[in-house]
Amino acid sequence: MTGDFSKLNFCIVGMGLIGGSYARALRNIGAGKILGVDVRQDALDAALAEGCIDEGDTEGDRFLPRADVFIFCLYAPVMKAWITERASRFLPGTLLTDTAGIKGHMPEEIQQLLPAGVEFLAGHPMAGREGQGFEKSDGTIFRGAGYIIVPHSRNTAGNISWLACLARALGCRRAAVTDAASHDRLIAYTSDLPHILAAVLMNSGTFREGLSSFTAGSFHDMTRIADMNSALWTELLMENRDILSGEICAFQNRLETLKQMLERCDKKQMKAFFEEASERKRALNHEENSGQFKKIFL
Amino acid sequence: MTGDFSKLNFCIVGMGLIGGSYARALRNIGAGKILGVDVRQDALDAALAEGCIDEGDTEGDRFLPRADVFIFCLYAPVMKAWITERASRFLPGTLLTDTAGIKGHMPEEIQQLLPAGVEFLAGHPMAGREGQGFEKSDGTIFRGAGYIIVPHSRNTAGNISWLACLARALGCRRAAVTDAASHDRLIAYTSDLPHILAAVLMNSGTFREGLSSFTAGSFHDMTRIADMNSALWTELLMENRDILSGEICAFQNRLETLKQMLERCDKKQMKAFFEEASERKRALNHEENSGQFKKIFL
Repeated sequence: MTGDFSKLNFCIVGMGLIGGSYARALRNIGAGKILGVDVRQDALDAALAEGCIDEGDTEGDRFLPRADVFIFCLYAPVMKAWITERASRFLPGTLLTDTAGIKGHMPEEIQQLLPAGVEFLAGHPMAGREGQGFEKSDGTIFRGAGYIIVPHSRNTAGNISWLACLARALGCRRAAVTDAASHDRLIAYTSDLPHILAAVLMNSGTFREGLSSFTAGSFHDMTRIADMNSALWTELLMENRDILSGEICAFQNRLETLKQMLERCDKKQMKAFFEEASERKRALNHEENSGQFKKIFL
Repeated sequence: MTGDFSKLNFCIVGMGLIGGSYARALRNIGAGKILGVDVRQDALDAALAEGCIDEGDTEGDRFLPRADVFIFCLYAPVMKAWITERASRFLPGTLLTDTAGIKGHMPEEIQQLLPAGVEFLAGHPMAGREGQGFEKSDGTIFRGAGYIIVPHSRNTAGNISWLACLARALGCRRAAVTDAASHDRLIAYTSDLPHILAAVLMNSGTFREGLSSFTAGSFHDMTRIADMNSALWTELLMENRDILSGEICAFQNRLETLKQMLERCDKKQMKAFFEEASERKRALNHEENSGQFKKIFL
Protein backbone atom coordinates (compact mmCIF):
# COMPACT_ATOMS: atom_id res chain seq x y z
CA MET A 1 0.00 0.00 0.00
CA THR A 2 1.45 3.33 -0.99
CA GLY A 3 2.25 6.02 1.57
CA ASP A 4 1.06 8.62 -0.94
CA PHE A 5 -2.46 9.02 0.43
CA SER A 6 -3.56 11.08 -2.59
CA LYS A 7 -3.36 7.89 -4.63
CA LEU A 8 -5.67 5.94 -2.33
CA ASN A 9 -9.46 5.89 -2.11
CA PHE A 10 -10.96 5.48 1.33
CA CYS A 11 -14.38 4.19 2.27
CA ILE A 12 -15.59 5.06 5.75
CA VAL A 13 -18.40 2.83 6.99
CA GLY A 14 -20.27 4.56 9.81
CA MET A 15 -20.25 8.34 9.51
CA GLY A 16 -20.83 9.20 13.16
CA LEU A 17 -18.50 11.14 15.42
CA ILE A 18 -15.47 8.94 14.74
CA GLY A 19 -16.20 8.22 11.07
CA GLY A 20 -16.88 11.88 10.38
CA SER A 21 -13.63 12.79 12.10
CA TYR A 22 -11.71 10.37 9.85
CA ALA A 23 -13.37 11.89 6.78
CA ARG A 24 -12.36 15.40 7.80
CA ALA A 25 -8.83 14.41 8.75
CA LEU A 26 -8.35 12.39 5.54
CA ARG A 27 -9.54 15.37 3.52
CA ASN A 28 -7.01 17.56 5.34
CA ILE A 29 -4.13 15.26 4.40
CA GLY A 30 -5.17 15.19 0.75
CA ALA A 31 -6.48 11.63 0.49
CA GLY A 32 -7.90 10.47 -2.88
CA LYS A 33 -11.63 9.82 -3.05
CA ILE A 34 -13.43 9.68 0.29
CA LEU A 35 -16.57 7.56 0.19
CA GLY A 36 -19.02 7.53 3.07
CA VAL A 37 -21.49 4.84 4.13
CA ASP A 38 -24.18 5.37 6.74
CA VAL A 39 -27.76 4.22 7.20
CA ARG A 40 -28.63 7.85 7.99
CA GLN A 41 -29.00 9.82 4.78
CA ASP A 42 -28.90 13.11 6.76
CA ALA A 43 -25.40 12.31 8.02
CA LEU A 44 -24.28 11.67 4.43
CA ASP A 45 -25.94 14.87 3.22
CA ALA A 46 -24.22 16.89 5.91
CA ALA A 47 -20.84 15.30 5.08
CA LEU A 48 -21.34 15.97 1.37
CA ALA A 49 -22.42 19.56 2.05
CA GLU A 50 -19.28 20.14 4.08
CA GLY A 51 -17.16 18.57 1.38
CA CYS A 52 -15.58 15.95 3.58
CA ILE A 53 -16.84 13.03 1.47
CA ASP A 54 -17.02 12.82 -2.32
CA GLU A 55 -19.91 10.36 -2.43
CA GLY A 56 -22.28 8.84 0.07
CA ASP A 57 -24.37 5.69 0.09
CA THR A 58 -26.70 4.12 2.65
CA GLU A 59 -25.65 0.60 1.61
CA GLY A 60 -22.13 0.96 0.28
CA ASP A 61 -22.11 -2.02 -2.10
CA ARG A 62 -21.13 0.12 -5.04
CA PHE A 63 -17.98 1.26 -3.20
CA LEU A 64 -16.66 -2.30 -2.79
CA PRO A 65 -14.64 -2.34 -6.05
CA ARG A 66 -13.55 1.29 -5.71
CA ALA A 67 -11.96 1.72 -2.28
CA ASP A 68 -8.40 0.71 -1.42
CA VAL A 69 -9.00 1.06 2.30
CA PHE A 70 -12.16 0.56 4.37
CA ILE A 71 -12.32 2.15 7.82
CA PHE A 72 -15.13 0.77 9.98
CA CYS A 73 -16.46 3.17 12.61
CA LEU A 74 -19.36 1.02 13.81
CA TYR A 75 -20.22 -1.16 16.79
CA ALA A 76 -18.34 -4.43 16.25
CA PRO A 77 -21.43 -6.65 15.71
CA VAL A 78 -22.79 -4.27 13.07
CA MET A 79 -19.41 -4.17 11.33
CA LYS A 80 -19.20 -7.95 11.34
CA ALA A 81 -22.67 -8.27 9.80
CA TRP A 82 -21.84 -5.68 7.12
CA ILE A 83 -18.62 -7.45 6.16
CA THR A 84 -20.15 -10.95 6.26
CA GLU A 85 -22.78 -9.94 3.74
CA ARG A 86 -20.22 -8.56 1.29
CA ALA A 87 -17.07 -10.56 2.06
CA SER A 88 -16.62 -12.22 -1.33
CA ARG A 89 -16.87 -8.93 -3.20
CA PHE A 90 -13.81 -7.11 -1.77
CA LEU A 91 -11.02 -6.95 -4.36
CA PRO A 92 -7.63 -8.52 -3.64
CA GLY A 93 -5.25 -5.94 -2.19
CA THR A 94 -7.99 -4.18 -0.21
CA LEU A 95 -7.22 -3.29 3.41
CA LEU A 96 -9.95 -3.22 6.04
CA THR A 97 -9.41 -1.63 9.44
CA ASP A 98 -11.65 -0.76 12.39
CA THR A 99 -11.83 1.42 15.48
CA ALA A 100 -13.54 -0.88 18.01
CA GLY A 101 -12.65 -0.43 21.68
CA ILE A 102 -12.38 -4.15 22.54
CA LYS A 103 -10.75 -6.70 20.23
CA GLY A 104 -10.92 -10.23 21.71
CA HIS A 105 -11.06 -12.79 18.89
CA MET A 106 -12.92 -10.45 16.54
CA PRO A 107 -9.94 -9.63 14.25
CA GLU A 108 -9.23 -13.30 13.40
CA GLU A 109 -12.94 -14.01 13.03
CA ILE A 110 -13.31 -11.23 10.49
CA GLN A 111 -10.12 -12.24 8.66
CA GLN A 112 -11.55 -15.74 8.23
CA LEU A 113 -14.56 -14.32 6.41
CA LEU A 114 -12.42 -12.63 3.77
CA PRO A 115 -11.07 -13.97 0.45
CA ALA A 116 -7.36 -14.39 -0.18
CA GLY A 117 -5.50 -11.11 -0.61
CA VAL A 118 -7.97 -9.07 1.47
CA GLU A 119 -6.61 -8.13 4.86
CA PHE A 120 -8.34 -7.02 8.05
CA LEU A 121 -5.96 -5.14 10.39
CA ALA A 122 -7.51 -4.03 13.69
CA GLY A 123 -6.88 -0.50 14.91
CA HIS A 124 -7.98 1.66 17.82
CA PRO A 125 -7.37 5.41 17.80
CA MET A 126 -7.32 6.72 21.40
CA ALA A 127 -9.29 9.75 20.33
CA GLY A 128 -12.82 10.89 20.93
CA ARG A 129 -15.06 13.66 22.08
CA GLU A 130 -18.16 14.09 24.16
CA GLY A 131 -21.42 13.58 22.27
CA GLN A 132 -22.19 11.50 19.23
CA GLY A 133 -23.12 11.77 15.56
CA PHE A 134 -21.54 13.34 12.49
CA GLU A 135 -22.40 16.82 13.74
CA LYS A 136 -19.91 16.31 16.60
CA SER A 137 -17.11 15.06 14.34
CA ASP A 138 -13.83 16.94 14.32
CA GLY A 139 -10.79 16.27 12.15
CA THR A 140 -8.40 17.35 14.90
CA ILE A 141 -9.26 14.63 17.44
CA PHE A 142 -6.27 12.57 16.31
CA ARG A 143 -3.74 15.29 17.05
CA GLY A 144 -1.38 14.23 19.81
CA ALA A 145 -3.29 10.99 20.42
CA GLY A 146 -2.09 7.39 20.49
CA TYR A 147 -3.09 4.88 17.80
CA ILE A 148 -3.14 1.22 18.72
CA ILE A 149 -2.56 -1.34 15.97
CA VAL A 150 -3.57 -4.89 16.85
CA PRO A 151 -2.25 -7.37 14.25
CA HIS A 152 -3.21 -11.02 14.16
CA SER A 153 -0.99 -13.78 12.80
CA ARG A 154 -2.00 -13.26 9.16
CA ASN A 155 -1.40 -9.52 8.92
CA THR A 156 1.51 -8.37 6.79
CA ALA A 157 4.36 -6.14 7.94
CA GLY A 158 3.69 -3.79 5.05
CA ASN A 159 0.13 -3.04 6.11
CA ILE A 160 1.10 -2.68 9.77
CA SER A 161 3.70 -0.07 8.79
CA TRP A 162 1.24 1.62 6.48
CA LEU A 163 -1.38 2.01 9.24
CA ALA A 164 1.25 3.52 11.57
CA CYS A 165 2.11 5.90 8.73
CA LEU A 166 -1.53 6.88 8.37
CA ALA A 167 -1.80 7.45 12.14
CA ARG A 168 1.18 9.78 11.96
CA ALA A 169 -0.29 11.64 9.00
CA LEU A 170 -3.59 12.09 10.89
CA GLY A 171 -1.67 13.84 13.66
CA CYS A 172 -1.18 11.03 16.15
CA ARG A 173 1.92 11.25 18.27
CA ARG A 174 2.29 7.58 19.07
CA ALA A 175 1.45 4.25 17.47
CA ALA A 176 1.63 1.07 19.50
CA VAL A 177 1.62 -2.37 17.91
CA THR A 178 0.33 -5.04 20.24
CA ASP A 179 -1.74 -8.24 20.37
CA ALA A 180 -5.45 -8.34 21.15
CA ALA A 181 -5.05 -9.73 24.67
CA SER A 182 -2.59 -6.98 25.66
CA HIS A 183 -4.79 -4.37 24.03
CA ASP A 184 -7.84 -5.47 25.97
CA ARG A 185 -5.91 -5.70 29.23
CA LEU A 186 -4.42 -2.22 28.87
CA ILE A 187 -7.76 -0.72 27.81
CA ALA A 188 -9.42 -2.33 30.86
CA TYR A 189 -6.94 -0.31 32.91
CA THR A 190 -6.73 2.99 31.03
CA SER A 191 -10.32 3.37 29.87
CA ASP A 192 -12.80 0.89 31.38
CA LEU A 193 -11.68 1.19 35.00
CA PRO A 194 -11.62 5.04 34.99
CA HIS A 195 -15.24 5.11 33.80
CA ILE A 196 -16.23 2.76 36.60
CA LEU A 197 -14.35 4.76 39.23
CA ALA A 198 -15.90 8.03 38.08
CA ALA A 199 -19.41 6.57 38.34
CA VAL A 200 -18.77 4.95 41.72
CA LEU A 201 -17.36 8.23 43.04
CA MET A 202 -20.43 10.17 41.88
CA ASN A 203 -22.84 7.69 43.41
CA SER A 204 -21.62 8.25 46.98
CA GLY A 205 -24.21 8.69 49.72
CA THR A 206 -22.29 11.85 50.62
CA PHE A 207 -23.31 13.48 47.32
CA ARG A 208 -25.88 16.23 47.91
CA GLU A 209 -27.31 19.42 46.58
CA GLY A 210 -24.96 22.30 47.24
CA LEU A 211 -21.89 20.09 46.77
CA SER A 212 -20.53 22.53 44.19
CA SER A 213 -19.27 24.77 47.00
CA PHE A 214 -16.99 21.91 48.04
CA THR A 215 -15.68 20.79 44.65
CA ALA A 216 -12.44 22.12 43.25
CA GLY A 217 -10.56 20.95 40.18
CA SER A 218 -9.66 17.54 41.61
CA PHE A 219 -13.26 16.34 41.95
CA HIS A 220 -14.31 18.08 38.77
CA ASP A 221 -11.64 16.42 36.61
CA MET A 222 -11.96 13.04 38.26
CA THR A 223 -15.69 12.86 37.53
CA ARG A 224 -15.66 14.47 34.07
CA ILE A 225 -16.44 11.13 32.41
CA ALA A 226 -19.16 10.23 34.92
CA ASP A 227 -21.62 11.81 32.47
CA MET A 228 -21.37 9.02 29.93
CA ASN A 229 -23.37 7.18 27.28
CA SER A 230 -24.65 4.58 29.76
CA ALA A 231 -25.92 2.07 27.20
CA LEU A 232 -22.70 2.15 25.15
CA TRP A 233 -20.43 1.83 28.18
CA THR A 234 -22.46 -1.00 29.64
CA GLU A 235 -21.95 -2.93 26.38
CA LEU A 236 -18.22 -2.11 26.19
CA LEU A 237 -17.54 -3.11 29.79
CA MET A 238 -19.52 -6.33 29.51
CA GLU A 239 -17.53 -7.29 26.40
CA ASN A 240 -14.31 -6.98 28.37
CA ARG A 241 -15.64 -8.27 31.66
CA ASP A 242 -13.22 -11.08 32.45
CA ILE A 243 -10.16 -8.89 32.16
CA LEU A 244 -11.89 -5.90 33.71
CA SER A 245 -13.04 -7.88 36.69
CA GLY A 246 -9.40 -8.78 37.40
CA GLU A 247 -8.34 -5.15 37.07
CA ILE A 248 -11.07 -4.10 39.53
CA CYS A 249 -9.94 -6.78 42.02
CA ALA A 250 -6.36 -5.53 41.82
CA PHE A 251 -7.62 -1.98 42.37
CA GLN A 252 -9.65 -3.13 45.38
CA ASN A 253 -6.57 -4.77 46.88
CA ARG A 254 -4.45 -1.64 46.54
CA LEU A 255 -7.22 0.57 47.93
CA GLU A 256 -7.56 -1.74 50.92
CA THR A 257 -3.80 -1.57 51.48
CA LEU A 258 -3.91 2.21 51.44
CA LYS A 259 -6.92 2.29 53.78
CA GLN A 260 -5.00 0.14 56.24
CA MET A 261 -2.05 2.54 56.10
CA LEU A 262 -4.51 5.31 56.93
CA GLU A 263 -6.14 3.42 59.78
CA ARG A 264 -2.86 2.49 61.41
CA CYS A 265 -1.55 6.02 60.78
CA ASP A 266 1.43 4.72 58.81
CA LYS A 267 2.64 8.01 57.35
CA LYS A 268 5.88 6.59 56.03
CA GLN A 269 4.22 3.92 53.88
CA MET A 270 1.53 6.29 52.69
CA LYS A 271 4.03 8.91 51.66
CA ALA A 272 6.01 6.27 49.75
CA PHE A 273 2.82 5.12 48.01
CA PHE A 274 2.05 8.68 46.91
CA GLU A 275 5.63 9.24 45.78
CA GLU A 276 5.44 6.16 43.59
CA ALA A 277 2.17 7.43 42.06
CA SER A 278 3.65 10.89 41.51
CA GLU A 279 6.72 9.47 39.78
CA ARG A 280 4.60 7.32 37.51
CA LYS A 281 2.34 10.23 36.62
CA ARG A 282 5.32 12.41 35.77
CA ALA A 283 6.82 9.64 33.63
CA LEU A 284 3.49 9.24 31.82
CA ASN A 285 3.17 13.00 31.27
CA HIS A 286 6.69 12.97 29.89
CA GLU A 287 5.79 10.20 27.44
CA GLU A 288 2.56 11.94 26.44
CA ASN A 289 4.31 15.21 25.78
CA SER A 290 7.20 13.79 23.82
CA GLY A 291 7.19 15.70 20.56
CA GLN A 292 8.54 12.97 18.26
CA PHE A 293 6.23 10.46 16.63
CA LYS A 294 7.02 7.03 18.03
CA LYS A 295 6.07 3.56 16.95
CA ILE A 296 6.45 1.03 19.71
CA PHE A 297 5.96 -2.69 20.00
CA LEU A 298 4.47 -3.99 23.23
CA MET B 1 -16.98 44.95 59.94
CA THR B 2 -17.50 47.26 56.99
CA GLY B 3 -18.09 45.93 53.49
CA ASP B 4 -16.00 48.81 52.15
CA PHE B 5 -12.74 46.89 51.81
CA SER B 6 -10.75 50.07 51.14
CA LYS B 7 -11.30 51.01 54.78
CA LEU B 8 -9.86 47.75 56.12
CA ASN B 9 -6.26 46.72 56.64
CA PHE B 10 -5.43 43.06 56.02
CA CYS B 11 -2.54 41.04 57.40
CA ILE B 12 -1.74 37.84 55.55
CA VAL B 13 0.28 35.36 57.59
CA GLY B 14 2.03 32.90 55.28
CA MET B 15 2.87 34.38 51.88
CA GLY B 16 3.02 31.16 49.87
CA LEU B 17 0.83 30.21 46.94
CA ILE B 18 -2.45 30.79 48.78
CA GLY B 19 -1.32 33.80 50.85
CA GLY B 20 0.22 35.44 47.81
CA SER B 21 -2.98 34.85 45.87
CA TYR B 22 -5.00 36.60 48.62
CA ALA B 23 -2.59 39.53 48.54
CA ARG B 24 -2.96 39.92 44.79
CA ALA B 25 -6.73 39.52 44.85
CA LEU B 26 -7.14 41.94 47.75
CA ARG B 27 -5.02 44.50 45.90
CA ASN B 28 -7.28 44.06 42.87
CA ILE B 29 -10.40 44.84 44.89
CA GLY B 30 -8.84 47.96 46.39
CA ALA B 31 -8.30 46.78 49.96
CA GLY B 32 -6.65 49.20 52.44
CA LYS B 33 -3.16 48.34 53.65
CA ILE B 34 -1.98 44.81 52.88
CA LEU B 35 0.61 43.53 55.35
CA GLY B 36 2.51 40.32 54.70
CA VAL B 37 4.15 37.96 57.18
CA ASP B 38 6.44 35.12 56.19
CA VAL B 39 9.58 33.54 57.62
CA ARG B 40 11.08 33.77 54.13
CA GLN B 41 12.36 37.26 53.49
CA ASP B 42 12.65 36.52 49.76
CA ALA B 43 8.90 35.87 49.52
CA LEU B 44 8.26 39.23 51.20
CA ASP B 45 10.75 40.98 48.94
CA ALA B 46 9.08 39.53 45.87
CA ALA B 47 5.61 40.53 47.11
CA LEU B 48 6.83 44.05 47.88
CA ALA B 49 8.54 44.33 44.50
CA GLU B 50 5.32 43.33 42.76
CA GLY B 51 3.35 45.81 44.84
CA CYS B 52 0.93 43.29 46.25
CA ILE B 53 1.83 44.02 49.88
CA ASP B 54 2.56 47.41 51.45
CA GLU B 55 4.83 46.11 54.18
CA GLY B 56 6.41 42.79 55.04
CA ASP B 57 7.73 41.30 58.26
CA THR B 58 9.24 37.94 59.16
CA GLU B 59 7.65 38.02 62.64
CA GLY B 60 4.53 40.14 62.24
CA ASP B 61 4.25 41.39 65.83
CA ARG B 62 4.23 45.00 64.72
CA PHE B 63 1.14 44.36 62.58
CA LEU B 64 -0.97 43.14 65.54
CA PRO B 65 -2.39 46.59 66.42
CA ARG B 66 -2.73 47.66 62.79
CA ALA B 67 -4.72 45.00 60.93
CA ASP B 68 -8.51 44.66 61.03
CA VAL B 69 -8.42 41.20 59.47
CA PHE B 70 -5.82 38.45 59.66
CA ILE B 71 -5.86 35.73 57.02
CA PHE B 72 -3.79 32.69 57.94
CA CYS B 73 -2.40 30.72 55.01
CA LEU B 74 -0.27 28.30 57.00
CA TYR B 75 -0.36 24.68 58.11
CA ALA B 76 -2.80 24.55 61.03
CA PRO B 77 -0.22 23.67 63.73
CA VAL B 78 2.03 26.55 62.67
CA MET B 79 -0.93 28.93 62.69
CA LYS B 80 -1.95 27.76 66.13
CA ALA B 81 1.55 28.30 67.50
CA TRP B 82 1.75 31.79 65.93
CA ILE B 83 -1.58 32.84 67.43
CA THR B 84 -0.87 31.29 70.85
CA GLU B 85 2.29 33.35 71.18
CA ARG B 86 0.48 36.62 70.40
CA ALA B 87 -3.12 35.98 71.53
CA SER B 88 -3.35 38.68 74.18
CA ARG B 89 -2.11 41.38 71.82
CA PHE B 90 -4.90 41.32 69.20
CA LEU B 91 -7.14 44.38 69.55
CA PRO B 92 -10.88 43.95 70.23
CA GLY B 93 -12.84 43.97 66.98
CA THR B 94 -10.14 42.10 65.06
CA LEU B 95 -11.26 39.21 62.85
CA LEU B 96 -9.01 36.20 62.26
CA THR B 97 -9.72 33.68 59.52
CA ASP B 98 -7.85 30.73 58.00
CA THR B 99 -7.69 28.54 54.93
CA ALA B 100 -6.94 25.10 56.44
CA GLY B 101 -8.28 22.07 54.60
CA ILE B 102 -9.48 20.17 57.69
CA LYS B 103 -11.23 21.85 60.60
CA GLY B 104 -12.06 19.32 63.36
CA HIS B 105 -12.02 21.08 66.75
CA MET B 106 -9.37 23.58 65.68
CA PRO B 107 -11.70 26.60 65.31
CA GLU B 108 -13.04 26.39 68.89
CA GLU B 109 -9.56 25.69 70.23
CA ILE B 110 -8.20 28.83 68.60
CA GLN B 111 -11.20 30.90 69.70
CA GLN B 112 -10.53 29.87 73.30
CA LEU B 113 -7.03 31.34 73.08
CA LEU B 114 -8.31 34.78 72.13
CA PRO B 115 -9.36 37.70 74.34
CA ALA B 116 -12.95 38.97 74.40
CA GLY B 117 -13.97 40.81 71.24
CA VAL B 118 -11.47 39.01 69.00
CA GLU B 119 -13.11 36.47 66.73
CA PHE B 120 -11.72 33.50 64.82
CA LEU B 121 -13.96 32.45 61.92
CA ALA B 122 -12.75 29.43 59.95
CA GLY B 123 -12.80 29.56 56.17
CA HIS B 124 -11.72 27.31 53.31
CA PRO B 125 -11.49 28.64 49.76
CA MET B 126 -11.82 25.74 47.28
CA ALA B 127 -9.12 27.25 45.14
CA GLY B 128 -5.56 26.28 44.40
CA ARG B 129 -2.97 25.61 41.78
CA GLU B 130 -0.21 23.14 41.10
CA GLY B 131 3.08 24.00 42.72
CA GLN B 132 3.89 25.99 45.82
CA GLY B 133 5.39 29.25 47.03
CA PHE B 134 4.70 32.93 46.40
CA GLU B 135 6.08 32.69 42.88
CA LYS B 136 3.13 30.43 41.98
CA SER B 137 0.51 32.73 43.51
CA ASP B 138 -2.24 34.07 41.29
CA GLY B 139 -4.97 36.53 42.21
CA THR B 140 -7.47 34.87 39.89
CA ILE B 141 -7.62 31.48 41.64
CA PHE B 142 -10.79 32.51 43.50
CA ARG B 143 -12.76 33.22 40.33
CA GLY B 144 -15.71 30.88 40.00
CA ALA B 145 -14.65 28.88 43.08
CA GLY B 146 -16.57 27.93 46.19
CA TYR B 147 -15.72 29.41 49.60
CA ILE B 148 -16.63 27.40 52.69
CA ILE B 149 -17.30 29.27 55.93
CA VAL B 150 -17.22 27.11 59.05
CA PRO B 151 -18.62 29.02 62.04
CA HIS B 152 -18.46 27.74 65.60
CA SER B 153 -20.98 28.61 68.31
CA ARG B 154 -19.33 31.91 69.29
CA ASN B 155 -19.07 33.44 65.81
CA THR B 156 -21.28 36.43 65.06
CA ALA B 157 -23.74 36.68 62.18
CA GLY B 158 -22.14 39.96 61.11
CA ASN B 159 -18.71 38.42 60.58
CA ILE B 160 -20.16 35.37 58.82
CA SER B 161 -21.94 37.67 56.36
CA TRP B 162 -18.84 39.80 55.96
CA LEU B 163 -16.67 36.79 55.02
CA ALA B 164 -19.24 35.69 52.40
CA CYS B 165 -19.12 39.25 51.07
CA LEU B 166 -15.34 39.09 50.83
CA ALA B 167 -15.55 35.74 49.03
CA ARG B 168 -17.90 37.27 46.49
CA ALA B 169 -15.61 40.27 46.03
CA LEU B 170 -12.63 37.96 45.45
CA GLY B 171 -14.55 36.40 42.57
CA CYS B 172 -16.01 33.29 44.21
CA ARG B 173 -19.27 32.08 42.79
CA ARG B 174 -20.54 30.26 45.85
CA ALA B 175 -20.19 30.52 49.62
CA ALA B 176 -21.38 27.68 51.83
CA VAL B 177 -21.85 28.06 55.56
CA THR B 178 -21.54 24.79 57.41
CA ASP B 179 -20.26 23.21 60.62
CA ALA B 180 -16.82 21.65 61.02
CA ALA B 181 -18.08 18.04 61.00
CA SER B 182 -20.01 18.53 57.75
CA HIS B 183 -17.07 20.38 56.21
CA ASP B 184 -14.66 17.59 57.03
CA ARG B 185 -17.09 14.92 55.81
CA LEU B 186 -17.71 16.67 52.50
CA ILE B 187 -14.00 17.38 51.99
CA ALA B 188 -13.22 13.70 52.66
CA TYR B 189 -15.50 12.98 49.71
CA THR B 190 -14.68 15.80 47.29
CA SER B 191 -10.96 16.21 47.89
CA ASP B 192 -9.35 13.49 50.05
CA LEU B 193 -10.92 10.48 48.32
CA PRO B 194 -10.13 11.69 44.76
CA HIS B 195 -6.44 12.04 45.68
CA ILE B 196 -6.43 8.49 47.04
CA LEU B 197 -8.21 7.09 43.99
CA ALA B 198 -5.83 8.83 41.60
CA ALA B 199 -2.81 7.38 43.39
CA VAL B 200 -4.30 3.88 43.62
CA LEU B 201 -5.15 3.98 39.91
CA MET B 202 -1.59 5.01 39.00
CA ASN B 203 -0.03 2.27 41.13
CA SER B 204 -1.63 -0.57 39.18
CA GLY B 205 0.52 -3.55 38.22
CA THR B 206 -0.77 -2.98 34.67
CA PHE B 207 1.09 0.36 34.47
CA ARG B 208 4.06 0.12 32.14
CA GLU B 209 6.36 2.02 29.86
CA GLY B 210 4.60 2.83 26.60
CA LEU B 211 1.24 3.24 28.35
CA SER B 212 0.85 6.68 26.79
CA SER B 213 -0.30 5.06 23.54
CA PHE B 214 -3.27 3.69 25.47
CA THR B 215 -4.27 6.77 27.47
CA ALA B 216 -6.90 9.18 26.23
CA GLY B 217 -8.50 12.07 28.10
CA SER B 218 -10.31 9.87 30.61
CA PHE B 219 -7.16 8.41 32.15
CA HIS B 220 -5.28 11.66 31.81
CA ASP B 221 -7.87 13.73 33.68
CA MET B 222 -8.56 11.10 36.28
CA THR B 223 -4.89 10.89 37.28
CA ARG B 224 -4.05 14.59 36.97
CA ILE B 225 -3.77 14.93 40.77
CA ALA B 226 -1.72 11.73 41.15
CA ASP B 227 1.36 13.95 40.91
CA MET B 228 0.92 15.49 44.34
CA ASN B 229 2.86 16.92 47.27
CA SER B 230 3.13 13.54 49.00
CA ALA B 231 4.20 14.86 52.41
CA LEU B 232 1.43 17.48 52.56
CA TRP B 233 -1.29 15.07 51.44
CA THR B 234 -0.17 12.40 53.88
CA GLU B 235 -0.58 14.93 56.70
CA LEU B 236 -3.97 16.17 55.45
CA LEU B 237 -5.40 12.68 55.02
CA MET B 238 -4.15 11.50 58.40
CA GLU B 239 -5.79 14.51 60.07
CA ASN B 240 -9.14 13.49 58.59
CA ARG B 241 -8.64 9.75 58.86
CA ASP B 242 -11.72 8.67 60.81
CA ILE B 243 -14.15 10.29 58.41
CA LEU B 244 -12.06 9.42 55.37
CA SER B 245 -11.85 5.78 56.36
CA GLY B 246 -15.66 5.64 56.38
CA GLU B 247 -15.84 7.31 52.97
CA ILE B 248 -13.36 4.76 51.58
CA CYS B 249 -15.42 1.87 53.01
CA ALA B 250 -18.57 3.22 51.37
CA PHE B 251 -16.66 3.55 48.08
CA GLN B 252 -15.42 -0.04 48.42
CA ASN B 253 -18.97 -1.28 48.93
CA ARG B 254 -20.28 0.49 45.83
CA LEU B 255 -17.33 -0.70 43.74
CA GLU B 256 -17.97 -4.27 44.90
CA THR B 257 -21.65 -3.91 43.96
CA LEU B 258 -20.72 -2.73 40.49
CA LYS B 259 -18.15 -5.51 40.08
CA GLN B 260 -20.85 -8.05 40.90
CA MET B 261 -23.15 -6.53 38.27
CA LEU B 262 -20.30 -6.96 35.80
CA GLU B 263 -19.58 -10.54 36.82
CA ARG B 264 -23.19 -11.66 36.61
CA CYS B 265 -23.60 -9.68 33.37
CA ASP B 266 -26.44 -7.59 34.80
CA LYS B 267 -26.66 -4.97 32.07
CA LYS B 268 -29.90 -3.48 33.34
CA GLN B 269 -28.55 -2.67 36.82
CA MET B 270 -25.24 -1.43 35.45
CA LYS B 271 -26.92 0.90 33.00
CA ALA B 272 -29.13 2.26 35.78
CA PHE B 273 -26.03 2.81 37.95
CA PHE B 274 -24.34 4.78 35.15
CA GLU B 275 -27.49 6.78 34.47
CA GLU B 276 -27.65 7.81 38.12
CA ALA B 277 -23.99 8.90 37.98
CA SER B 278 -24.59 10.80 34.74
CA GLU B 279 -27.58 12.64 36.19
CA ARG B 280 -25.65 13.61 39.29
CA LYS B 281 -22.71 14.85 37.24
CA ARG B 282 -24.97 16.97 35.06
CA ALA B 283 -26.69 18.41 38.15
CA LEU B 284 -23.29 19.24 39.65
CA ASN B 285 -22.09 20.84 36.42
CA HIS B 286 -25.26 22.89 36.39
CA GLU B 287 -24.62 24.10 39.95
CA GLU B 288 -20.96 24.85 39.19
CA ASN B 289 -21.85 26.88 36.12
CA SER B 290 -24.64 28.88 37.67
CA GLY B 291 -23.71 32.49 37.08
CA GLN B 292 -25.27 34.06 40.18
CA PHE B 293 -23.34 34.28 43.46
CA LYS B 294 -25.05 32.07 46.01
CA LYS B 295 -24.71 31.78 49.74
CA ILE B 296 -26.05 28.50 51.06
CA PHE B 297 -26.41 26.95 54.48
CA LEU B 298 -25.76 23.24 54.73
